[in-house]
Amino acid sequence: MQPMSLLSRESTQPLTEQLAQRFVTRMRDQLWVSGARLPSVRQCAQMHGVSASTVVAAYDWLVAQGWVEARPNRGFFVRDRGQRTPPLPAVAGGVVPSPPPVNAASLIRGMFHQPSAEPQPGMGVFPADWLDADFLSAALRKVVTSPALRESSLRYGEPQGDTSLREALSSKLASMGLHAAPDQLITTVGATHALDIISRTLLRPGDCVMVEEPGWAIEFARLQNLGVRILPVPRLETGPDLDVVERYAQLHAPKMMVSVSVLHNPTGYGLSMPVAHQLVNLAHRYHFHVVEDDTYGHMAPAHAVRLSVLDGLQKTIYVSGYAKILAPSWRVGYMAAPADLKDAFLDTKLLSTLTTPVLFEKALALCLEQGAIRRHTERLSQRLEAARSRSVKLALAHGCQFVAPPQGLFGWVDVGVDTDLLALRMHDAGYLLAPGSLFHADRRPGSLMRVNFASTQDDKFWRALAKTRTELL
Amino acid sequence: MQPMSLLSRESTQPLTEQLAQRFVTRMRDQLWVSGARLPSVRQCAQMHGVSASTVVAAYDWLVAQGWVEARPNRGFFVRDRGQRTPPLPAVAGGVVPSPPPVNAASLIRGMFHQPSAEPQPGMGVFPADWLDADFLSAALRKVVTSPALRESSLRYGEPQGDTSLREALSSKLASMGLHAAPDQLITTVGATHALDIISRTLLRPGDCVMVEEPGWAIEFARLQNLGVRILPVPRLETGPDLDVVERYAQLHAPKMMVSVSVLHNPTGYGLSMPVAHQLVNLAHRYHFHVVEDDTYGHMAPAHAVRLSVLDGLQKTIYVSGYAKILAPSWRVGYMAAPADLKDAFLDTKLLSTLTTPVLFEKALALCLEQGAIRRHTERLSQRLEAARSRSVKLALAHGCQFVAPPQGLFGWVDVGVDTDLLALRMHDAGYLLAPGSLFHADRRPGSLMRVNFASTQDDKFWRALAKTRTELL
Repeated sequence: MQPMSLLSRESTQPLTEQLAQRFVTRMRDQLWVSGARLPSVRQCAQMHGVSASTVVAAYDWLVAQGWVEARPNRGFFVRDRGQRTPPLPAVAGGVVPSPPPVNAASLIRGMFHQPSAEPQPGMGVFPADWLDADFLSAALRKVVTSPALRESSLRYGEPQGDTSLREALSSKLASMGLHAAPDQLITTVGATHALDIISRTLLRPGDCVMVEEPGWAIEFARLQNLGVRILPVPRLETGPDLDVVERYAQLHAPKMMVSVSVLHNPTGYGLSMPVAHQLVNLAHRYHFHVVEDDTYGHMAPAHAVRLSVLDGLQKTIYVSGYAKILAPSWRVGYMAAPADLKDAFLDTKLLSTLTTPVLFEKALALCLEQGAIRRHTERLSQRLEAARSRSVKLALAHGCQFVAPPQGLFGWVDVGVDTDLLALRMHDAGYLLAPGSLFHADRRPGSLMRVNFASTQDDKFWRALAKTRTELL
Repeated sequence: MQPMSLLSRESTQPLTEQLAQRFVTRMRDQLWVSGARLPSVRQCAQMHGVSASTVVAAYDWLVAQGWVEARPNRGFFVRDRGQRTPPLPAVAGGVVPSPPPVNAASLIRGMFHQPSAEPQPGMGVFPADWLDADFLSAALRKVVTSPALRESSLRYGEPQGDTSLREALSSKLASMGLHAAPDQLITTVGATHALDIISRTLLRPGDCVMVEEPGWAIEFARLQNLGVRILPVPRLETGPDLDVVERYAQLHAPKMMVSVSVLHNPTGYGLSMPVAHQLVNLAHRYHFHVVEDDTYGHMAPAHAVRLSVLDGLQKTIYVSGYAKILAPSWRVGYMAAPADLKDAFLDTKLLSTLTTPVLFEKALALCLEQGAIRRHTERLSQRLEAARSRSVKLALAHGCQFVAPPQGLFGWVDVGVDTDLLALRMHDAGYLLAPGSLFHADRRPGSLMRVNFASTQDDKFWRALAKTRTELL
């Protein structure tokens, strides 16, 4: 991860080459994905402080090399270099009328290429140093040095996941009012794996799925990859827009809905009791399953409303994990499934990874049993609250507006300029932003973006943002 | 895991109930899968030493409870209890004419339910105590106590997998003649995950895939689950039947072939140089990819022929892992991919599990760098050789015949009676067998079965087998 340097006039490499090279890097890293439009020659020249002819020469070179294509009167576009994601099957009267030109999966890869060592406002996680806790290493050491583990690591683990972990999770869920027997729980390689298993099991290409919008790019990417039709449901402050859900249910017979009830990403919205109640009723009436992604739920108040709790895991499937609040590299996630679907999910898990690593599951069970995670989460919440209030003040002071009341890890802000362009400019300054287009199935641009409260407490970032914003106004 | 007890006349539970209960357990554990035919009343009565009327009463109860259905003049069949695997899409002129009635994924679940504590002849792995080695725990302890790891576990790992592991694997592959840069390697949650990622990326429902037959049930299950059409290619002693491959290639334009070149499962066959050469040429001429599953390759001689080595990873994708010779619960596998496919595979990996657990990858890298795995593998090979020669003698002495020269971990033997029936009887005696039907896409029964040389060294098993075999002759 080297910081993106500015173009250098002292370099022996001509400016044209430096510029072209930078664009190639962006395309390789999928920051510019196939189908994306390059900045206009004028914009680009202004952005990089070079002449228009330098930009034209750089673009010409990219065209010649097959990276970019020129479309008359429309500008320059990133070319599709090989069959990444195969095109979606043609669907008559699709609700998202044509597949978006981007390969959304590759956006995720881009998230792993941070442009500098600065805290990254666009990231979806807590900064690493917030997660550090002695109890994690202690639990791991204990598990690693235990003779029982030595024995258990010589066998494939239990297909459903370590029994001690499933028992600990069952108790934890019960304390939230969600009654799921250990036998209804399946551990996975992070919550991502759980969401993937569920989608693969319940959906076939051409099926319709409702997803909250705004929503997270990875969810859209996963579903697009499966060749299903995405029905975007507006996310309101109290939950998904129920009128839209019902209309979709009547018109398209969707098989599934994905919902983040608590501390919704990116808005931070929760779910009201009446909306939860009606949504569960709709799921039963129209025979679709609701996947409740509770990845961020650790940070929520204890009384937060969850669909799975209301429904008692009949048409709802609960998914969560520990990557957000503990060591992300442990990759421990899980699902609580309706009894009639558990076996089908388990089959898909076995076909995808066979079992999951036992060691982390045992270590996590230990942490849960000892209450260490509860205390850790409380500390994290307090620290986040303080950070959020600082970050909100800075955002407001620098001309941003919150379109949703600031809660949880993310702020959903309006900056008044196109956030795709803003993200591009800020990337040069060493900051990775999460522009609003990431949160729409069709990648529609706009002036909204998501900020991570934990990594936006430095005035320096907000000043850079305000400056770039002014330039784009 | 409790041993399956015989029916007891002393029990307060009537014999009918005991019998019915036993069948329910089998169906729950997916030892009898939906569509499977129950033994005839006469067979069943004989098998369990009860009267025909007891069996009829038990079967009637199972029909009443919805577990089983009676088909006039055909017998009793296990009913499909809910939508496990959705049916394959209808394909005109399919080569495997109709989807098999079984849910093959559930067979795997069955593998985790061992009927007793005896060594299991049907298992696909080394017994746990063969794998125990101090260097594994030492490497884990070292990684767990290192401050660098503590830091790295607080972040998602590298998308492609830990760099130190990919470098160590790249050197290991080079020593086999396979030149793959660390950047062409992607780590996965076991080899299963690698195979799954590749299939999901290259195939769409309705596509054709060639698979060696006999071949492993999990591979068939994975592909059936993806809704693709399986083209079975006979596996000969020198490799896949090339005439069949070419005919399929001309008729069905398959996208992919899955091949186990070295120590093929279940036959133990290898690959001759000319067959390898021609197969690679066919892949290029007819534009299909060959996935080379080298899971068992650790046990093979150094000079064994591999497709990926010949082809230099152009149309070939190499897959292997360490679950077979090291701690299975670590779940570390990997693939070496053609440069033009690597990004697409990486996208699928990210959508399926995001990253993979860093700790095991670092520990494995340490073991590889220190040469500990090479020495461990040599010890394992020697021990296996001794076991194989004992097991072969016992098999021959008890009337079994090897249909392929005994090599590697598995023997492919002809016992002269239906091995599905034999497996059922032996399960009651506490042994899990791997009948030949597991190794065919259409689950066709036969008199072949796979034995694990490492777990069939006890005369007791062979005597039980010979006795049951005689009863079935």
